Amino acid sequence: MATLHHYPLCPHSRFARLALAELGRVVDLVEERPWERRESFLALDPAGQTPVLVEDDGLVVPGPAVIAEWLDETTGPAEPERRLMPAEPAARVEVRRLMGWFLGKFYEEVTGYLVNEKIYKRFVSASAGGGPPDMATIRAARANVRYHVRYIGFLAQRRNFLAGEALTYADLAAAAHISCVDYLGDAPWAEDEAAKTWYARVKSRPSFRALLADRVPGMAPPDAYADLDF
Amino acid sequence: MATLHHYPLCPHSRFARLALAELGRVVDLVEERPWERRESFLALDPAGQTPVLVEDDGLVVPGPAVIAEWLDETTGPAEPERRLMPAEPAARVEVRRLMGWFLGKFYEEVTGYLVNEKIYKRFVSASAGGGPPDMATIRAARANVRYHVRYIGFLAQRRNFLAGEALTYADLAAAAHISCVDYLGDAPWAEDEAAKTWYARVKSRPSFRALLADRVPGMAPPDAYADLDF
Repeated sequence: MATLHHYPLCPHSRFARLALAELGRVVDLVEERPWERRESFLALDPAGQTPVLVEDDGLVVPGPAVIAEWLDETTGPAEPERRLMPAEPAARVEVRRLMGWFLGKFYEEVTGYLVNEKIYKRFVSASAGGGPPDMATIRAARANVRYHVRYIGFLAQRRNFLAGEALTYADLAAAAHISCVDYLGDAPWAEDEAAKTWYARVKSRPSFRALLADRVPGMAPPDAYADLDF
Repeated sequence: MATLHHYPLCPHSRFARLALAELGRVVDLVEERPWERRESFLALDPAGQTPVLVEDDGLVVPGPAVIAEWLDETTGPAEPERRLMPAEPAARVEVRRLMGWFLGKFYEEVTGYLVNEKIYKRFVSASAGGGPPDMATIRAARANVRYHVRYIGFLAQRRNFLAGEALTYADLAAAAHISCVDYLGDAPWAEDEAAKTWYARVKSRPSFRALLADRVPGMAPPDAYADLDF
């Protein structure tokens, strides 16, 4: 069976898990703590970041966007109903734009800060940059997430899903990242009703169940986190 | 004719220009200064970053990776000899891994710092974050670029081009970013002979000519920058 090296509260890992589940791919999950920079993990992928998918034949597929393209090329055409990318190139531009928005911009402005400050720094020694969270950084992330949630709401009011009529990687990328923010209690759901309704729909999908059951020891999510009706 | 909104010393714009030239696509170039955050540019793409390709029919294709995939899907299959991605999915994984390495990791650790400190900050007022370059940031970028150059050398010693036998987006992404570092006089060519030889080959390609002719007013590149034999 293929293996996904992931970390439960890594938003990029969550995106890969959602994509695999939506496409009906069952994989072994192996937890990797990327901040440990284990040599055998770096040997798989020198970038040393989760997620990394290792296929049955040993092919290493590293990183969320590369995994998404690989899964689309190898499973998409045979399963048009489950496919997470449109078949038409111009429509794929919009999916990739939004996938890049959430995997890149949202990560740099929100999830990267929050996950690092609130989770990774708990596990790293002070000499290696660990310690208590930096509140100025967390405040910046909390300010940034508001305009991203409004952007999700803007898209969700105009379209059935974020990139168009059908569920695509754009929704999974946005929902994977928002789910980490929500776990940490920092999702500003009062900001935008359309964004909240969109997220409730996506997190109700069977592919989301395993994510909502994950817990970081010593850090419980808010009550509404796993509540499908909020 | 299609239009590419670009900035001459933006490494992602250079990547898009190289890709277009290699594929034989002639486009109008329009200079955009992304730090100005012009409203009509933000209306094209809310991320507000160069490059943005606008096709004849008005389709907006934003960002280097999205442009690369779009060009491959629309021109690649019809022109297998010029194509910048392999046809086989497993080989595409390696091209995308390295393209992501240079467009992402290299940018975050090297070109993002250098271009911001040495170029963009010259054009921005002090109250908006402009001013003289921060030397600590530049030193960090100069330290980081050394291991990236060694990694290019490691790949170039084992393969004809970075991702395999043929020229791909991996080479263009690496060369576009290195060309900005080289313009700024910060490319550590003494670090790795194989990397230097690989770069000399790539920058000798006709697609590179227009890039090597670009100049930022008031900031000349080192003599060897546009010398095809170093």
